[in-house]
Amino acid sequence: MNNITIQVLADTLKISKSSVSKALRDSHEISTETKKKVLALAAKLNYSPNPYASSLRKKKSKTIAVVMPEIADSFFSLVINGIQSVAEKKGYHVLIYLSHEKYSNEKNILNEIHNGRVDGLLISISRETKNSDHIKRLQLAGVPIVFFDREIESIHTASVITNDFECGYIATKLLLDKGCKRPVFFSHSASLQICKKRAEGFRLALKKEGYNKKDIQIVYGTDNEKDNDTLIKKSLSAKKRPDAILASVEKLAIQVYMASQELDIEIPGELKVLAFSNIETASILNPPLSTITQPAFEIGKTAATILFKGIEKKHFKLENEKIIIPSVLIERKSTGN
Amino acid sequence: MNNITIQVLADTLKISKSSVSKALRDSHEISTETKKKVLALAAKLNYSPNPYASSLRKKKSKTIAVVMPEIADSFFSLVINGIQSVAEKKGYHVLIYLSHEKYSNEKNILNEIHNGRVDGLLISISRETKNSDHIKRLQLAGVPIVFFDREIESIHTASVITNDFECGYIATKLLLDKGCKRPVFFSHSASLQICKKRAEGFRLALKKEGYNKKDIQIVYGTDNEKDNDTLIKKSLSAKKRPDAILASVEKLAIQVYMASQELDIEIPGELKVLAFSNIETASILNPPLSTITQPAFEIGKTAATILFKGIEKKHFKLENEKIIIPSVLIERKSTGN
Repeated sequence: MNNITIQVLADTLKISKSSVSKALRDSHEISTETKKKVLALAAKLNYSPNPYASSLRKKKSKTIAVVMPEIADSFFSLVINGIQSVAEKKGYHVLIYLSHEKYSNEKNILNEIHNGRVDGLLISISRETKNSDHIKRLQLAGVPIVFFDREIESIHTASVITNDFECGYIATKLLLDKGCKRPVFFSHSASLQICKKRAEGFRLALKKEGYNKKDIQIVYGTDNEKDNDTLIKKSLSAKKRPDAILASVEKLAIQVYMASQELDIEIPGELKVLAFSNIETASILNPPLSTITQPAFEIGKTAATILFKGIEKKHFKLENEKIIIPSVLIERKSTGN
Repeated sequence: MNNITIQVLADTLKISKSSVSKALRDSHEISTETKKKVLALAAKLNYSPNPYASSLRKKKSKTIAVVMPEIADSFFSLVINGIQSVAEKKGYHVLIYLSHEKYSNEKNILNEIHNGRVDGLLISISRETKNSDHIKRLQLAGVPIVFFDREIESIHTASVITNDFECGYIATKLLLDKGCKRPVFFSHSASLQICKKRAEGFRLALKKEGYNKKDIQIVYGTDNEKDNDTLIKKSLSAKKRPDAILASVEKLAIQVYMASQELDIEIPGELKVLAFSNIETASILNPPLSTITQPAFEIGKTAATILFKGIEKKHFKLENEKIIIPSVLIERKSTGN
């Protein structure tokens, strides 16, 4: 606890207290520039909401919000089940909001949450999210926040993630051990931390085998299925086509299977495939898909458990909770097992 | 419009106006018996909320709720995408609540929604839901309601469903045409309308082929995965085991595939499989799975469109909107195509 008040922020910035309040609430009356200054200073001085705001917070809504990119993905639906297993016992409602991978949606959702609707937030950011002011603002309003899977490292709060870098490395190592010479990493984002870390692991494994930078191939997908299909087919039709694909997400792996079927490329004979995925049908696909299986349910359960500590315990420090739950590599036929 | 007021209800039942109000709000101060009487009379007399309640309703929350059994199912996640495609354009938030197939959860969620949190409700009931008072109460409070997929027919409001009876019939007909003699219908519920209708279609197709009642086999699953696994394996290990399975939901079909793998039963040679499902991986399963593909996205989109009419148009009659969007049978290798 410190004694940084709205008054201190106002005095330092030489603006009115009411302007500071409005900036913290993202009011349209305040310019973007001023809002940025207020948020930056509040973060720098470690401003926390005043006792009045805290007492308001005690009017528990008995509701937490989960904001995530999508649900048509086995990882996120399992996370939700993990979250709800904890919330149910606590007698809390869970509101699920989907950003559909759009920053603008995510921002709108967080503004909505702002009016005391929820006691806490679990969030996995959209692929577009680079600016984090919308999250900082909620944090400054005293709402406990826990990131899961996709975090923003510059925001000091709890996060529950998996060992993406290590898994990128192990997965690539497996493909090389199986004799692959031209592995390609298909990533669904160039900016998300989880994808960057997986790509780093991929790069390191290849570098250790003596690959030059220019021979390390990473293809970045978009959020458009058709575009990705075109990208995949282009890659698989190239003269020097890949003999292995590591997919950062199951959607891409499914598309690789479909494209291979269409182009008559045999998995695993001509192409080995490995994906970051919790897909239920992995073992009954043709051929069974090797996966880096993320501890999705555990991630949800752990994130919710920490969030409730943040909600219920007065002096619990969320920023000390950085939890990494490791994923598991499961070899199946798609990597020639 | 009629002029049935709370006063009329109170006078008819010889209780106070405040008791009627409390009963309509599901207050703990009122006995279950009284609540039932109030709801029954309100429904009978076609009571609609008074102008005050209506004016309260005009304070739009710009939020709609979706209550559904689960999301780890391709049907429901596609429905959500359909709903959000409409809501986004309207500038509405979508809150997703999961009942996890439990009536008690569904009831709690609807009570929560009751306090003016949302402008409308889209609901697909849980497998346990038989009592519908929680839904009637919300309707009486003036919240527009649209059912999707799983409805309660006795509640007079809009619904968007698919042609379950017809599909049960066509699917069974296909299995018989492929030479199957002992088809079994694996159903995930004995009480849900959609399952009953699919089962009716199954029965009719067999009756038309001269099957006796005792030779028509329907196996009812539970909401426990392990129990279902035991049921499936027991069925597939029986002396007179089925030569075809029609699964009412993709989860059961996936389990049938896994059990067949374990028991070394060849699909489609020894067992044909067909499922009601929107599973993305149907065409890359081993073997590709024949499906009754439901118009999930369309169901979500249509239900949301109707709900917004109910929210925005004063004299729009939701009860006149009963929409059936047909599903499509897609033959793949699992039925010997």
